[in-house]
Amino acid sequence: MGNETDGRGGGGIASRRGFLKAGLAAGGAALAGGGTALAREIGNPDNLPPNVPDWSRYLGDGVAVRAYGKPSQYEGHVIRRDVEWLTASRESSVSFTPIHELDGPITPNGLCFERHHGGIAEIDPRDYRLIVHGLVEKPLVFTLEDLKRFPRVNHAYFCECAANSGMEWRGAQLNGCQFTHGMIHSVMYTGIPLRNILAEAGVKPNGKWLLLEGADAAGMTRSVPIEKALDDVLIAYRMNGEMLRPENGYPVRAVVPGWEANMWVKWLRRIEIGDQPWYHREETSKYTDLLEDGSARKFTFVMDAKSVITSPSPQMPLNHPRGFTVISGLAWSGRGKIAGVDVSIDGGRNWRRARLDGPVWNKALTRFYFEFDWDGSPLLLQSRAIDETGYVQPTKDELRKVRGVNSIYHNNGIQTWHVMSSGEVENVEVS
Amino acid sequence: MGNETDGRGGGGIASRRGFLKAGLAAGGAALAGGGTALAREIGNPDNLPPNVPDWSRYLGDGVAVRAYGKPSQYEGHVIRRDVEWLTASRESSVSFTPIHELDGPITPNGLCFERHHGGIAEIDPRDYRLIVHGLVEKPLVFTLEDLKRFPRVNHAYFCECAANSGMEWRGAQLNGCQFTHGMIHSVMYTGIPLRNILAEAGVKPNGKWLLLEGADAAGMTRSVPIEKALDDVLIAYRMNGEMLRPENGYPVRAVVPGWEANMWVKWLRRIEIGDQPWYHREETSKYTDLLEDGSARKFTFVMDAKSVITSPSPQMPLNHPRGFTVISGLAWSGRGKIAGVDVSIDGGRNWRRARLDGPVWNKALTRFYFEFDWDGSPLLLQSRAIDETGYVQPTKDELRKVRGVNSIYHNNGIQTWHVMSSGEVENVEVS
Repeated sequence: MGNETDGRGGGGIASRRGFLKAGLAAGGAALAGGGTALAREIGNPDNLPPNVPDWSRYLGDGVAVRAYGKPSQYEGHVIRRDVEWLTASRESSVSFTPIHELDGPITPNGLCFERHHGGIAEIDPRDYRLIVHGLVEKPLVFTLEDLKRFPRVNHAYFCECAANSGMEWRGAQLNGCQFTHGMIHSVMYTGIPLRNILAEAGVKPNGKWLLLEGADAAGMTRSVPIEKALDDVLIAYRMNGEMLRPENGYPVRAVVPGWEANMWVKWLRRIEIGDQPWYHREETSKYTDLLEDGSARKFTFVMDAKSVITSPSPQMPLNHPRGFTVISGLAWSGRGKIAGVDVSIDGGRNWRRARLDGPVWNKALTRFYFEFDWDGSPLLLQSRAIDETGYVQPTKDELRKVRGVNSIYHNNGIQTWHVMSSGEVENVEVS
Repeated sequence: MGNETDGRGGGGIASRRGFLKAGLAAGGAALAGGGTALAREIGNPDNLPPNVPDWSRYLGDGVAVRAYGKPSQYEGHVIRRDVEWLTASRESSVSFTPIHELDGPITPNGLCFERHHGGIAEIDPRDYRLIVHGLVEKPLVFTLEDLKRFPRVNHAYFCECAANSGMEWRGAQLNGCQFTHGMIHSVMYTGIPLRNILAEAGVKPNGKWLLLEGADAAGMTRSVPIEKALDDVLIAYRMNGEMLRPENGYPVRAVVPGWEANMWVKWLRRIEIGDQPWYHREETSKYTDLLEDGSARKFTFVMDAKSVITSPSPQMPLNHPRGFTVISGLAWSGRGKIAGVDVSIDGGRNWRRARLDGPVWNKALTRFYFEFDWDGSPLLLQSRAIDETGYVQPTKDELRKVRGVNSIYHNNGIQTWHVMSSGEVENVEVS
């Protein structure tokens, strides 16, 4: 199904000019060229006038028949997916956000990636308890109702697994951004600044580290320095307005903005304050970055600036052979706001500034677009994020020179998609 | 289940001071007073240490078992609800957003209120067509794929039915903000500025009005002035990142920011450009405001500034007898951003400024909080919104003096909740 008009007459040219002007007015970077128009003239016999299908003839379902709504039956392919060979069991595994099927800066709750170590804890909120103890003046225990009495704040933050893109350290492996970059989501949290909880308990002067423990069967634990806890960590119980989903920590999880998702302990049951880190499994044998010389980087908490083009991508090919083309992607940084995103269509030789659209939040996913007139020749698409600290997303080779390829963590290198003339897309490396 | 500690000792006092300081640091307006603390000391025999329930003992569901997620089984009461006596059939009726169960500025997709006139059109996206015709240089028809090739923008906007709070014109009627104010939602849309579509077709100089027509069985139509169409109207196909839900217009709807929801035509199939409004049913016999003298206000498109306290409210009573209390609510204006919200606890005699938290977007829901130390005596809670034009939300009586009580539309008067000492809440009027 093509998208060309017959291209006859001055009307088409005038219309094209009008479109470009409008595109620029929207902040776009439409390029002049011999592109095709984006609509079909009704005069063309291939272009049917509006049909009158059954949904215009017969009554549909009434209100509240779907008391809690779900997507259209035609969107059944837009789901989280796992990779069966990647892990030994689904209870300790990962599913990936279908970022190629989404747009804008918000991830809908039903599609947020999962990473569990003992499966989903199904917590009865009446029996939920959070204990705060250790180096505090007054050990405390909170019910969910207690927590809901604290002043709340609302922030959107990205949550990215440290192993996101981890398979790509050793070259292009997975053919789709859902799998190369889908261990990320970004939602609007409602929660309590952790510093307010700690103020209730009264942290003793020698309290320097926190242990966060989950109530899942894995009893997930991570050590968090007190400076971060007093800065922007949230004890969150809502995402995008409603209560957290079970797979995202219902009823209460830690939100540790900009830091690796493994520290965002779900089903949070215990906060212990101590004078040093605990060196538990998830911060020693896991979630450290093994270097070439056999030493390991530890406590590499921050997720550095990164970006990926979500459309086109291997699972979302271009469905038109040439002409005006919209590139859509995501950028984020654990160190603050995104300052800009550059896009290359020639494998990194030339870069042009993309258009950021929608909110540009601190430590949250930012949507970018790059619009251009595709001549139908093969492309090597890349994006690179620049954050407000001035940090520029590196190439994968630059990262490998410094860190080797032993680790599966913290790969924030530039991703390359090879777009063929057919519109098909594959995951490649350029050197 | 109470929330008091035993209140003994200097530690409690110090802790209280610490909490207030933290509350203020978060932008709160915590009031000094003899309030109760928000946690239980573990030393108190009523305060159990963390339990070790089954969810900490046994593995739960693995990843991607729920390929598209849904809320916890314990949140089954958080649903859209209709009022059976309100309309003759569910196909032409309304369901209400459970705003009393939500927080933050975003409505999750599964809970957005519905208003249908012929039930939900279940559109196969492959057969979807949008026609643009009338006073244009070049009539056009678009497939969904055509529309997805246009440059996109992302904006959060509130969508409010003109009849929201309509039953309240004649006094306090419905006991719950889901029913008095729940014909509203606010999501992040991804779509195309309508002006770009119109530029493709080329509007003739005498083109002054648009007719928007839906593909549902009701063939919903509304007239929209060209100035609005060229300003900020979107042709939207995504909400909160994913494709629109069927009940919200899948695959394409009009987004008419700040204007009454009836104009946000869902399942959009046709845009006709004309030189005057069409005066169809939904803009004559419906959605006009009948005054006392028998005349009717027509084309009252804008939704003026309005607010409501969502918690506490009749469906969400206070579950503690006294002490530190968080009031949460929503404010919005069809004329721009919310500049401030005032809260009264004494029926409008005294007002204090609330804390706005989270994004304050143009023509979108804004979350506000008011924190105070409740002494347990009855309250008459009110909120009033002030928008960036300086407009102050009026009382219901002020509105009635001007407009009478014949209309069911555009009631943006101040809502009053009577909070009893028991914590129960009822819908009341104060004069």
